[in-house]
Amino acid sequence: MADGFSLDVVARDGQARASRLTTAHGVIETPAFMPVATFGAVRGISVEDLQSAGTQILLSNTYHLHERPGEETVEALGGLHGFTGWHGPWLTDSGGYQVTSLSDRAKVTEEGVTFRSALDGKKRQLTPENVIRIQESLGADIAMVLDECVRVETGDEGRTNPDRVEAAMQRTLRWLARSKAARRRPDQAVFAIVQGGASESLRRRSAEETAALDFEGYAHGGLGLGETRDERQAAVSVANAILPEDRPRYLMGLGRPVDLLDGVAAGVDLFDCVVPTRNGRHGLLFTSEGTLNLRNAVHARDSNPPDPECNCPACRLHGRGYLRHLIRSGEALGSRLAALHNLTYYMSLLNRAREAIIAGTFASFRAEIEEVSERRI
Amino acid sequence: MADGFSLDVVARDGQARASRLTTAHGVIETPAFMPVATFGAVRGISVEDLQSAGTQILLSNTYHLHERPGEETVEALGGLHGFTGWHGPWLTDSGGYQVTSLSDRAKVTEEGVTFRSALDGKKRQLTPENVIRIQESLGADIAMVLDECVRVETGDEGRTNPDRVEAAMQRTLRWLARSKAARRRPDQAVFAIVQGGASESLRRRSAEETAALDFEGYAHGGLGLGETRDERQAAVSVANAILPEDRPRYLMGLGRPVDLLDGVAAGVDLFDCVVPTRNGRHGLLFTSEGTLNLRNAVHARDSNPPDPECNCPACRLHGRGYLRHLIRSGEALGSRLAALHNLTYYMSLLNRAREAIIAGTFASFRAEIEEVSERRI
Repeated sequence: MADGFSLDVVARDGQARASRLTTAHGVIETPAFMPVATFGAVRGISVEDLQSAGTQILLSNTYHLHERPGEETVEALGGLHGFTGWHGPWLTDSGGYQVTSLSDRAKVTEEGVTFRSALDGKKRQLTPENVIRIQESLGADIAMVLDECVRVETGDEGRTNPDRVEAAMQRTLRWLARSKAARRRPDQAVFAIVQGGASESLRRRSAEETAALDFEGYAHGGLGLGETRDERQAAVSVANAILPEDRPRYLMGLGRPVDLLDGVAAGVDLFDCVVPTRNGRHGLLFTSEGTLNLRNAVHARDSNPPDPECNCPACRLHGRGYLRHLIRSGEALGSRLAALHNLTYYMSLLNRAREAIIAGTFASFRAEIEEVSERRI
Repeated sequence: MADGFSLDVVARDGQARASRLTTAHGVIETPAFMPVATFGAVRGISVEDLQSAGTQILLSNTYHLHERPGEETVEALGGLHGFTGWHGPWLTDSGGYQVTSLSDRAKVTEEGVTFRSALDGKKRQLTPENVIRIQESLGADIAMVLDECVRVETGDEGRTNPDRVEAAMQRTLRWLARSKAARRRPDQAVFAIVQGGASESLRRRSAEETAALDFEGYAHGGLGLGETRDERQAAVSVANAILPEDRPRYLMGLGRPVDLLDGVAAGVDLFDCVVPTRNGRHGLLFTSEGTLNLRNAVHARDSNPPDPECNCPACRLHGRGYLRHLIRSGEALGSRLAALHNLTYYMSLLNRAREAIIAGTFASFRAEIEEVSERRI
């Protein structure tokens, strides 16, 4: 285990759990959501904004930082903590998902992933070893292994061939062993990634073999890529039943409020997604009354706050009519305030989920949010 | 005079003066800079940010708000104060400058300015009367008259014909009388605009006839459009010698720190310009050590704050290397932090100018800033 890294489960309610995750840069009360700071900043949102929203940990994208400004520059400026001024916990992804999602430019071999840079067109390679090395330079509290990620459903051809899904799962396991051997930093935790598409049996095998390699935490990868909600729920549950209870579990890249609560119900501790910030830019706000679409004309002369129960700057200082105007005018303040509202909503949602788990009322809380999420304003 | 509107000069140093300008929504200590909130927001900067920078009054663009969301909507939501959440003083321009600066689409007649909307391509007309009416709906504390503005220097043809400059000055005077007759709101001050290009004699005549019409304040228009620095200084000085001492004077659309101090030296009280926000977006920061260009490679691994004497969020929380990275990555937080830094610098600059006027040391302060402004970092 990395120095000073531990998970203490403080309450359980069904499979859901509330925990304290201790990292080198602070304690995270889970379940917790990680805003995505692609280039080391969350799209116009400041460190002080993130603190006011209740953020506990940030995620940054290794591939983007490797391209610009480069991990040596980040390291020279004190790693992600010193570089960005966010001195709480950081997690970095491995870059593999970004690269393989540009699939026509990426080629996966046993050695790693080869692709052409979107920045300068030059050839680059990510390997299990060099993504560990890059992330050690970036200095996050939690690094992710390189994995091979395949879509469950491809748009044109339907379901991906099961042999292809299994081969990717097996390759990910071989890469896990190489990742582990490449580690040097005693103060950085590394999370392994479970693969296996929408197949329960592949997810089970992947979880068993991954858990045997003994990482500080485990992620569910390759989901939100075409599987049904039930399939996703089964894939996460079957793996969580195998993964050790004393290690954090992270559902990668999902998603909407109901997706987060599905994950919590299946025993997940950590989440990340661009949905709150991206939807905010488009004028879609999550509120205690349902999903508010600021682009609807009905809001043009509405001076009510987006969410009467929220205390973020948008809801404290502004009305729907003004925010709608900013979004429609392409004024940067509109995206900023809407994204910050959504992040505040996500933090509050998982905080309330935690309280419900402790109180033993998670199922009814989840049902209430599911009902609210279906309302359109 | 509009209700509750007054100017009290509290100190003089040469032609420079320090005053207290009382408006319906608060007192402004002058000389003062007005950040430009084109659509009712300053490019990604929040009300709380503006307060922290020391902002006393905001400017918004009548033409842009007329097009979107329309003055009726702004009025229905409580005017600019209620609409935006900035409850301090507001000034709105007349829209004339925006329209005539799109000169190939605008046609000026005695009635007003006809043009095609950039938003929907439809024909629109601004007249002295309807710009007063629109601004009364917007509800700013200070409205501006419609003026005809001609460039001193045109790129292709050299200097604008003196007859053309005089005709625009004379038309502006006729429009002033119509603007005055159109006024209805007793709680809104209206400022007239002096024209006359780079000609001292035209500026003198314009100031005399404008002052005779008795407005709450006076602006210098049509400058920063090709004249030399000496010509501009003479144009402002000759008019200020005529304009009444107990009315505020506003130099429209200028500019860099040295331009502001030139104006202060000539007795100007109010300024606006997009330079601090636009330069910020491009990574150009005004500092106590000179002009910092964050795009220079020398800053890539510099952890020093942009300006060690500044207490804005960028300088308090971040280093040059990180801000450079954000600007180069097109990350919205970079533009926001850099623009807020420049606004903070402008507010501090004019606050220090005010203190120097009161102390009788304005000339040496101006010389010091002129010297610093020439340094490049």
